[in-house]
Amino acid sequence: MSEQKQGLLLIVSGPAGSGKGTVLRQLMSDPRYVYSVSATTRHPRPEDKEGVTYYFFTREQFLSKVEKGEMLEYTQYVGNYYGTPKEKVSHALREGKNVILEIETDGAMQVKKLMPDAVSVMLLPPDYATLEGRLRGRGTEDEETILKRLKTAVDEVALCDRYDYIIVNETGKSEQAVQRLREIVAVEQLRPERDPDFKARFFAKG
Amino acid sequence: MSEQKQGLLLIVSGPAGSGKGTVLRQLMSDPRYVYSVSATTRHPRPEDKEGVTYYFFTREQFLSKVEKGEMLEYTQYVGNYYGTPKEKVSHALREGKNVILEIETDGAMQVKKLMPDAVSVMLLPPDYATLEGRLRGRGTEDEETILKRLKTAVDEVALCDRYDYIIVNETGKSEQAVQRLREIVAVEQLRPERDPDFKARFFAKG
Repeated sequence: MSEQKQGLLLIVSGPAGSGKGTVLRQLMSDPRYVYSVSATTRHPRPEDKEGVTYYFFTREQFLSKVEKGEMLEYTQYVGNYYGTPKEKVSHALREGKNVILEIETDGAMQVKKLMPDAVSVMLLPPDYATLEGRLRGRGTEDEETILKRLKTAVDEVALCDRYDYIIVNETGKSEQAVQRLREIVAVEQLRPERDPDFKARFFAKG
Repeated sequence: MSEQKQGLLLIVSGPAGSGKGTVLRQLMSDPRYVYSVSATTRHPRPEDKEGVTYYFFTREQFLSKVEKGEMLEYTQYVGNYYGTPKEKVSHALREGKNVILEIETDGAMQVKKLMPDAVSVMLLPPDYATLEGRLRGRGTEDEETILKRLKTAVDEVALCDRYDYIIVNETGKSEQAVQRLREIVAVEQLRPERDPDFKARFFAKG
């Protein structure tokens, strides 16, 4: 198949303790992957960089984009809006980049509805005991905070069968999970519907 | 995910000149794969081996299996029946083997209808020129035979978008095509619907 074809939108969710951060950092070292940067209405902090940590929108800009259907998904959190500008994602996909959208379960389902071509993956620890161990292991939070985080994680795991794929991130084997993500992208690109001109090209060289 | 899970039924089609034989031979060197042996009503030849080249059925046995819905697909060819006994395939899948069903387009669609969990792959040469070159390259057939074989091949390529995946077998790179087949199997096994007990196992170890 041709090399100029459209990239893949890869939605990645994973509860705390899934090791998602490490896995995605390794994947991003490949230049064919770009990370989808969110837009937000919260005020920039000193460490923020426009277009790197976030795109900073005014409330009016953000809500206007929502109204025009220009946000792939959005949510409100402590008074601020957070979301994914459709145009940035589409541009990268047209350039043939695979776009990683790291997002929680609710946003993942919103995006999947608007862009059915997107591929959704949930990254999980091997089992609940490991999940709890990894969450407690940090040792920096009180019991109430830990229980709250555990509850959130369990709610996310419960939705794993709504995803296209589940990757279990075995302890100490994050390279394997990265490899699985790469394989998902490679295999999804073999679907005929992702290359509608294939037959025309095939017979053109006759 | 667990190691005892059900294997995958992999339907592989490919026109003459696709290099399918070489690719499947390489794949079959992996003991996790088994080749689905067809049943036939034709008479055994000296080189035939029951259960290896074919299962040899009487006409009555064959038609009784068809009637009972025990053939995944079948066809008639110069007066003899050829088909895939469901029971043999299901048994291997339950044992966790990945079953390769090498079959032409019509049979592929029959099987996909009866076993929607099956994954269908069409193997193709890079383009029509290569296909024609590989067919003519044998140099053993007259023009009429070649044109007939080309027509059959073109008819098969035309159906490629009914398959789940298309693998282009680049000249001299059959290992790459084998690798793609392996990746398809690995990635398909990450689908939540193929492991309905996953969540139960996840939370059991808590």
